[in-house]
Amino acid sequence: MAERTCAMVVVGNEILSGKVQDSNAYFAARELRKLGVALQRIAVVPDEIPSIADEVAHCAKTFDFVLTSGGVGPTHDDITIEAVAVAFGRKVVIDPELRRIVEQHFTGGLNAAGLKMAEVPEGAVLIAAGDVRFPTVQLENVYILPGIPQIFETKLAALAGRFATDPYYIRAIYLNAGEGLIAEHLNSCLKQYPQLLLGSYPRIGNAEYRVKLTLESKDRDYLKSAFDCLIGLLPGAVVVKTE
Amino acid sequence: MAERTCAMVVVGNEILSGKVQDSNAYFAARELRKLGVALQRIAVVPDEIPSIADEVAHCAKTFDFVLTSGGVGPTHDDITIEAVAVAFGRKVVIDPELRRIVEQHFTGGLNAAGLKMAEVPEGAVLIAAGDVRFPTVQLENVYILPGIPQIFETKLAALAGRFATDPYYIRAIYLNAGEGLIAEHLNSCLKQYPQLLLGSYPRIGNAEYRVKLTLESKDRDYLKSAFDCLIGLLPGAVVVKTE
Repeated sequence: MAERTCAMVVVGNEILSGKVQDSNAYFAARELRKLGVALQRIAVVPDEIPSIADEVAHCAKTFDFVLTSGGVGPTHDDITIEAVAVAFGRKVVIDPELRRIVEQHFTGGLNAAGLKMAEVPEGAVLIAAGDVRFPTVQLENVYILPGIPQIFETKLAALAGRFATDPYYIRAIYLNAGEGLIAEHLNSCLKQYPQLLLGSYPRIGNAEYRVKLTLESKDRDYLKSAFDCLIGLLPGAVVVKTE
Repeated sequence: MAERTCAMVVVGNEILSGKVQDSNAYFAARELRKLGVALQRIAVVPDEIPSIADEVAHCAKTFDFVLTSGGVGPTHDDITIEAVAVAFGRKVVIDPELRRIVEQHFTGGLNAAGLKMAEVPEGAVLIAAGDVRFPTVQLENVYILPGIPQIFETKLAALAGRFATDPYYIRAIYLNAGEGLIAEHLNSCLKQYPQLLLGSYPRIGNAEYRVKLTLESKDRDYLKSAFDCLIGLLPGAVVVKTE
């Protein structure tokens, strides 16, 4: 199966203004990687319908699927549903099933804020996967998830089965030399193994190592050959450990 | 002075694949907020020239200035300089001043990897601000910063004077009620104070409060009036504390 691609659109003035550090993108990146899905873009946009709609429309056309995070709920700044509707040229409608679920939750009867939580873009489907109180709203290839990390994580985990393809194999090499001294060896290895995904991550002020190299491939044998090649090229004295 | 706008382009396969959690965007968001600059977009893109160049070109046209993070250095995956050059239709050239600085750093003489660190987009200027070993490369309204957090932070702090305009005034209200019960009060307050920036952030599993509201304005008196209005609307029993 060809690798599936994904983008994530994070809706949040609170992140752009530095009041909150986003953790959902980092969580999604790790989960998607384990599932063999290539996350190829993360965009954090303001709580404004045109900004969200433009980004969602672009990502929905460019990638296999899109996750949105945030801007879902009963308050004035929860506009992701409307923005996703705009991205696809749809109306916003009340979903009867969602209205029933929200009514059970609001024991005192539905006020306007509660009713807002039953809104979906026309044509959306509900995914009632896993142990979550509210189903996830899906329109075309876009999955609309809430921004609260605990709920985002639970919902994404419940959707994982839909996204899984084939996973990566990963090795790592830790070095006590700087990047300037090893760059030519990395380039030589990549000439021989052009399909290798090779990452080089310096760490300043770390007593244990100065650079972490990561080697990745979906082909286990290719990864082993490339790993052996690079270890053979690097001066033995600079290799602290491997994983 | 009108508020200046900014976008940040984070270059990093390591972030998209979940190997590293980005901290530079969060740091920049807080610093820019303090300076009165509106960060309006964060995009994380892969280590691929077209992806970086398209995003930088879009942001440079749309916002007053752009910060890039990552993809700067001597290794094969350091392609931000070339991508920014592509974004503006420029060539990549060796900067003589940068070459001199790199030569001082590489005591054994310049290899190809070292020479790569002296490359800039044609027409770039060097900003040697603050206590940093390498100057920051600026092309038009784009500032090219490294991905290593310690260096990113030092360099951004050194540039702060260039970006400062007028700051926000901020208040906060902590509530022990859920969003569904308070949404109508927020909407009433916003009708009276449409210029107020009002944020509502639920926290699950927090013993102290359930929702944090943030109120912001660049006008200190307007903020005070809006704050007093909202406190008057909210049931006193749900207010845990204010800041």
